[in-house]
Amino acid sequence: MSIVLINPFEVPLGQEENFRQGWQAAAEHLRQAPGFISTRLHESLDKEARFRFINVAEWESPQHFQAAMRSEAMAQVRQHMHFTAYPALYQVIVEEKSSSSH
Amino acid sequence: MSIVLINPFEVPLGQEENFRQGWQAAAEHLRQAPGFISTRLHESLDKEARFRFINVAEWESPQHFQAAMRSEAMAQVRQHMHFTAYPALYQVIVEEKSSSSH
Repeated sequence: MSIVLINPFEVPLGQEENFRQGWQAAAEHLRQAPGFISTRLHESLDKEARFRFINVAEWESPQHFQAAMRSEAMAQVRQHMHFTAYPALYQVIVEEKSSSSH
Repeated sequence: MSIVLINPFEVPLGQEENFRQGWQAAAEHLRQAPGFISTRLHESLDKEARFRFINVAEWESPQHFQAAMRSEAMAQVRQHMHFTAYPALYQVIVEEKSSSSH
């Protein structure tokens, strides 16, 4: 069962570049991890948004994701990422497309 | 410039069905709104997750989304949706796919 990791990050004004670099380092490792499917990092248009960055990534299973999180490489990367985040695993329960975009 | 609305919802235990019905009613209207592209509603695997539901929707522009939000129909629907939410508009700044899923 493929799952979706959604991770909203709280990033203070002025820390954006610091966040982007930390996230890129993490993405380098995750991209090679077994079971990784895809990821999209979103940045808010409004600088006052509660969550300035939200990562939405697809994984083949919860187990694949958890194994990737436990890797030594990820432990190293996470030491440099001191941003409040609310990661959780999700499944898509409703999907709809505009009739014109089929 | 297409944009992404990401809306994390806090839904207390036991209120899930109430939320789903409210969200479906809103989705009915949004699906017909000009500029709507697609939407995916996510439900957390963990019942203790901070955000039990997160909606990720694509729109052709911020203006299309804001117009849809201002509609009379949406005003009606929102009267029944009393869940704490953190909606914001985003743009995708990084997108990566697994080398095996190309």
